[in-house]
Amino acid sequence: MEFSSKLLENAVYEMSQLPGIGKRTALRLVLHLLKQPEERTNLLSEAITKLRSEVNFCKSCHNISDTEVCEICANPKRDETIVCVVEDIRDVMAIENTSQFNGLYHVLGGKISPMEGVGPQDLNIVSLIQRVKEKEVKELIFALSSTMEGDTTNFYIYRQLEGLNVTTSTIARGISVGDELEYADEVTLGRSILNRVPFENSIKAS
Amino acid sequence: MEFSSKLLENAVYEMSQLPGIGKRTALRLVLHLLKQPEERTNLLSEAITKLRSEVNFCKSCHNISDTEVCEICANPKRDETIVCVVEDIRDVMAIENTSQFNGLYHVLGGKISPMEGVGPQDLNIVSLIQRVKEKEVKELIFALSSTMEGDTTNFYIYRQLEGLNVTTSTIARGISVGDELEYADEVTLGRSILNRVPFENSIKAS
Repeated sequence: MEFSSKLLENAVYEMSQLPGIGKRTALRLVLHLLKQPEERTNLLSEAITKLRSEVNFCKSCHNISDTEVCEICANPKRDETIVCVVEDIRDVMAIENTSQFNGLYHVLGGKISPMEGVGPQDLNIVSLIQRVKEKEVKELIFALSSTMEGDTTNFYIYRQLEGLNVTTSTIARGISVGDELEYADEVTLGRSILNRVPFENSIKAS
Repeated sequence: MEFSSKLLENAVYEMSQLPGIGKRTALRLVLHLLKQPEERTNLLSEAITKLRSEVNFCKSCHNISDTEVCEICANPKRDETIVCVVEDIRDVMAIENTSQFNGLYHVLGGKISPMEGVGPQDLNIVSLIQRVKEKEVKELIFALSSTMEGDTTNFYIYRQLEGLNVTTSTIARGISVGDELEYADEVTLGRSILNRVPFENSIKAS
């Protein structure tokens, strides 16, 4: 792509560094900003600079927070004895949206992935083990994605917990509510049969 | 979506104001920025702020340019007597990429669209007529998209040119090179038959 302006080229280049944004989309976005009032652009650039420089992570669960301890961890009504281990803060938001979980979270910040050069030391695992040792955590729920990396991470943490008095569980995998069996993949359908639940439980849940 | 941080919420909101970027994508982009070194975020926000505040439009053709007159208009090797009228600077880039046009451009900045509240006064039409009157423009090529708005704009400009000594043309519409006739839409195929060109021309072009 040939640009008639260095400023434009630079803005498009920086925009295209975002994931899923190619050169053409970046150009479209930048030209859109040019058509908007100048305040709009300033609001956007200020918002992201400010977030980046002032962002704070909860010192207990590593969720993004404006305060030292996040609202969830600071809430006395939540059950401190159950901790749900998730990959990133989007998972916290997704689980919070269900209103089905009243415990606390622990945000790992990723999964162990040798392919991408992410090892256990890059994740918030040490602080999780610390938390289990020091606080009264009775149950850890692993809610990582069920990929090879997710399973590896679960297993790594599981091994680190040896000798500690804590039970572990994973979230249930199965056919989505409302899905047709014939279109489900075999692995999921297989798991949902192996991990079948008493009928009374499914009545309670609905 | 419930956010655990006002800063995050604000950054996601501003990002989601861009066209084609929904709340979820905005969150993904912002979280990506958070994982990158702080310089990356600063480079992005500086690039767009700088572009917005220092951007310059060529005073002749209204293309984006770092100088008062853009490189194309300032190039003495280009044919000043032919002006190609386009909607926005992406069209200039697209035509430049073909290396088939040696004239100058005129960027309107949009199309006449009563539905979106865009009238002739919002576009660079007055300066186009001025240019035809003052400079030695012999031919105007309309290269707007062939929608109702594009046709309206073409016709509006055509009427404004009455009495001026300038010929007008539109770019050829027809079946794309390499396309199969059976899949072409009727209007395009119809036009490509009506506007057939001497066989010798097609030999020359290829």
